[in-house]
Amino acid sequence: MNKPVSRWPVPEIADLPEDLRQRILDVQARAGFVPNVFLAFAHRPEEARAFFAWHDALLLKDSGTLSRAEREMIIVATSAANDCLYCVVAHGALLRVYAKQPRLADQVATNYLKADIGERQRAMLAFALKVCKDSGSIAESDFAALRAHGFGDDDIWDIAAITALFGLSNRMANVLSLRPNDEFYLLGRLPRDNKA
Amino acid sequence: MNKPVSRWPVPEIADLPEDLRQRILDVQARAGFVPNVFLAFAHRPEEARAFFAWHDALLLKDSGTLSRAEREMIIVATSAANDCLYCVVAHGALLRVYAKQPRLADQVATNYLKADIGERQRAMLAFALKVCKDSGSIAESDFAALRAHGFGDDDIWDIAAITALFGLSNRMANVLSLRPNDEFYLLGRLPRDNKA
Amino acid sequence: MNKPVSRWPVPEIADLPEDLRQRILDVQARAGFVPNVFLAFAHRPEEARAFFAWHDALLLKDSGTLSRAEREMIIVATSAANDCLYCVVAHGALLRVYAKQPRLADQVATNYLKADIGERQRAMLAFALKVCKDSGSIAESDFAALRAHGFGDDDIWDIAAITALFGLSNRMANVLSLRPNDEFYLLGRLPRDNKA
Amino acid sequence: MNKPVSRWPVPEIADLPEDLRQRILDVQARAGFVPNVFLAFAHRPEEARAFFAWHDALLLKDSGTLSRAEREMIIVATSAANDCLYCVVAHGALLRVYAKQPRLADQVATNYLKADIGERQRAMLAFALKVCKDSGSIAESDFAALRAHGFGDDDIWDIAAITALFGLSNRMANVLSLRPNDEFYLLGRLPRDNKA
Amino acid sequence: MNKPVSRWPVPEIADLPEDLRQRILDVQARAGFVPNVFLAFAHRPEEARAFFAWHDALLLKDSGTLSRAEREMIIVATSAANDCLYCVVAHGALLRVYAKQPRLADQVATNYLKADIGERQRAMLAFALKVCKDSGSIAESDFAALRAHGFGDDDIWDIAAITALFGLSNRMANVLSLRPNDEFYLLGRLPRDNKA
Amino acid sequence: MNKPVSRWPVPEIADLPEDLRQRILDVQARAGFVPNVFLAFAHRPEEARAFFAWHDALLLKDSGTLSRAEREMIIVATSAANDCLYCVVAHGALLRVYAKQPRLADQVATNYLKADIGERQRAMLAFALKVCKDSGSIAESDFAALRAHGFGDDDIWDIAAITALFGLSNRMANVLSLRPNDEFYLLGRLPRDNKA
Repeated sequence: MNKPVSRWPVPEIADLPEDLRQRILDVQARAGFVPNVFLAFAHRPEEARAFFAWHDALLLKDSGTLSRAEREMIIVATSAANDCLYCVVAHGALLRVYAKQPRLADQVATNYLKADIGERQRAMLAFALKVCKDSGSIAESDFAALRAHGFGDDDIWDIAAITALFGLSNRMANVLSLRPNDEFYLLGRLPRDNKA
Repeated sequence: MNKPVSRWPVPEIADLPEDLRQRILDVQARAGFVPNVFLAFAHRPEEARAFFAWHDALLLKDSGTLSRAEREMIIVATSAANDCLYCVVAHGALLRVYAKQPRLADQVATNYLKADIGERQRAMLAFALKVCKDSGSIAESDFAALRAHGFGDDDIWDIAAITALFGLSNRMANVLSLRPNDEFYLLGRLPRDNKA
Repeated sequence: MNKPVSRWPVPEIADLPEDLRQRILDVQARAGFVPNVFLAFAHRPEEARAFFAWHDALLLKDSGTLSRAEREMIIVATSAANDCLYCVVAHGALLRVYAKQPRLADQVATNYLKADIGERQRAMLAFALKVCKDSGSIAESDFAALRAHGFGDDDIWDIAAITALFGLSNRMANVLSLRPNDEFYLLGRLPRDNKA
Repeated sequence: MNKPVSRWPVPEIADLPEDLRQRILDVQARAGFVPNVFLAFAHRPEEARAFFAWHDALLLKDSGTLSRAEREMIIVATSAANDCLYCVVAHGALLRVYAKQPRLADQVATNYLKADIGERQRAMLAFALKVCKDSGSIAESDFAALRAHGFGDDDIWDIAAITALFGLSNRMANVLSLRPNDEFYLLGRLPRDNKA
Repeated sequence: MNKPVSRWPVPEIADLPEDLRQRILDVQARAGFVPNVFLAFAHRPEEARAFFAWHDALLLKDSGTLSRAEREMIIVATSAANDCLYCVVAHGALLRVYAKQPRLADQVATNYLKADIGERQRAMLAFALKVCKDSGSIAESDFAALRAHGFGDDDIWDIAAITALFGLSNRMANVLSLRPNDEFYLLGRLPRDNKA
Repeated sequence: MNKPVSRWPVPEIADLPEDLRQRILDVQARAGFVPNVFLAFAHRPEEARAFFAWHDALLLKDSGTLSRAEREMIIVATSAANDCLYCVVAHGALLRVYAKQPRLADQVATNYLKADIGERQRAMLAFALKVCKDSGSIAESDFAALRAHGFGDDDIWDIAAITALFGLSNRMANVLSLRPNDEFYLLGRLPRDNKA
């Protein structure tokens, strides 16, 4: 009854180049399942490697003032603006887990102005959504609004780059009709999810 | 830390006119909590009564070919188009419960074209979203598309009227900044929710 | 040559439930004709009753600072934004009558920024149109702009609720292809109309 | 109480160059009043002459299959799309007079899909509104749709040119905040208007 | 391989009325080629005359503070917003020639916020683009923003009228599918072009 | 007078990690200058590497039916839709060089429907622009339209991925306010450019 994972063929893990195979086995060991994006993007290994490298540079870094939860907020808000089911569901799960707030992802995806976040996060998402929808109009006043909330130049690059990278990912996921794993829908919604 | 239920004062249940008080106690007995929309709209009893009467006429009817789950799908899809957090969360819960599909509401709210629904539901939501966003352009061809999927004239009125009523509700909820009850976020996501 | 009143069957007055029949006879006695919305909506009596109850609660109230003419201005401006012929024509007539300004409705329907209204009304219509078109972005600054013109919380609810209710009505009228009565087009345009 | 005729100074008729003075006296003799556009545009005589020459070439011609009423329909529909109060009111009056249909202008200005016009006029206005709003996408299929209703190449140029010329006029009238003469609002609405 | 000059027949120069023939021979003598707009618009001599008269009144005037290069900037920016290939290419060439800046036209056509222009020009183009896209919302604050940069009332009329006239021209060029002369693409890009 | 290359600091080539330094020296040797994107993105070496890897995988591949010129067409058309000056200018140059058509880039950037391209390219760009602007609505019918022109599944992924990658690049370039090198503006416009 369910739709397929992707409009393109999805490789068997065993058939993948060693580096991608290992990465996928690692995420499977950690998460308990293989997020479909790994399999669907691995249809083209070189592009998959570039995506994962960029992803890691922006999400796994430990410099700057953006928390991991804030990075996931950016992804959820802009993926919703891009109508991307996979990214809203998968990164919504990650946002719940990192923020330890089981209701935050649904709020940010639907209307961040109503979400339980602070002024700092609101400014961050306003900037991200402008980069997402109308980057050609980004002006000095937009930078000033972020600086007023303590964001530095490295943070601003991060906000823009996360928005831009997942804008890429949203478009690919939409064209592939990438199906979210069932597991993501519930992840981070129950108290025990947030223990680890 | 949470935002208030509404920008306007919310009445005490005990202070409400008897008919509204009874309705609220009934829903509380059935659901285990009082959905905030009852309290927030009861700030103006006459308008609340009109809303509930209209709501019941469209959602509790047992004629026509639309299932209750399909009616909730319409609400979720159009409320997402109207950026209404309360309605997406509350009716998302009802959709999960009535459809017994724990992932359906997130799909319909994000991008119904990617949802696990059939061609009939897809045509229904395409019509509803056109009524929601550009009702002035509704044309004979839109009616023909619905009839091709077996929808009769009464069904078509239902689809339009549910869209229109919740368009009203979305606007009020957005202006009130109506806060969804925490309970809705999880409702219908776990196997046991669907037993009853 | 004229289009029919509605895409759905229109009941005979004599066949209607007594309360709707009486209401229609009353309006006919007062206006000299039966506005088509009464007949078209009466195709579904329960929904018609809810609409009239809500309508009366918002338009016939005598509390708050909004004049009846201002309430009709909101309806005309937002109905034009929703491309609703019936409501622009019918409520344009009412606006002319209540404001005793025969040119006001055409101005408000076409471009309220050019209308012969004051700053207070301009702020009111700016808010109403934002509720109409982008209610999810309504923010504290929008409330502040209204308060600066003397609107209180009850007035603001009224502005939002009138916009929302007629947004519902606009969508239904567009889907029904509800035909305005010929009488409305001229009503309030001649000096004698404004005598009563 | 009324707004001024234009944001720019409006010349005295007596001070105008002879050709413009004569044209204005002629229209005054015929209509009984001087439409404000004549005075406001005459602030710059050369540009006014170009406008009137173009206007006459497109509206006073007697070749092609477009009736004068159809030409005015185009102006009313596209001026409404451009939110131009002056042109909707002034050409709405002309449309009523030429079509001898007192309700047609309000219909065409609000939503031409609901107007009492035929399929031919509907196709004509669909093309005009596309030229108005998205001329860069005009394609062969748009020409074919017009030809199917009997419009020839000269007619199609007329439709496009009327739309384009009044798009110019709409923008100038909006920037000037050009005030419609009070007389236009009622013109053509009463039976006697249509006698002449 | 190239597309034709226009969707409508293009007259032979020898067959044109004397005034248009002379104007075209003059421009050919000066430019070295006949810009296609002259031939395509001359399909209708009266309308062509009106266009050229208006064009000359706005572009060849020597009063006001707008330089010829600034006038061409307005045309390029608004023609790009209207997706008009002919005007972007032809007036882009003129902008390069008058401004003696070989890269300016590509910048203004793509995103004027990134162009090598000053604050004055930026304010001018912001106003022009608002007239182009949403003239119904032009307000006192827009005039104030221009006056703060030293633009007088005559300049403001010029900015609006150039935008409006070329909005007309853009729509006609798009409907005609007017083909830019090959010569325009390179004009003003090389150092020698700017000598004269 | 010129704007800086980027809002962020631009590294010295000598200070770059060896792989990036070598890549930049290579492109400099080949092109005669260092495109600013190399320097601006190298502010963050890891992200730069990911971009170049992805870029190479999509643009330097020799499988599939898309020519290099067609790949550049996609970049130019979608970068124009995203208002990205850098990418329109830089990839416009590459498009001219690869297609050996000095006027093609200006056409594709302004309005691809008027460009000297075939039906195949038109279908390709229609799909790319839909991925760019509304990827959530991509449907089976969009795939069918491409297949009708001989595009295979690998080509379709290429079109989508090039659009998505440069959508990322457009957003970053806009946020960085990345300045195009002067050399790009003229590249490929003169006969000799196309010799190599």
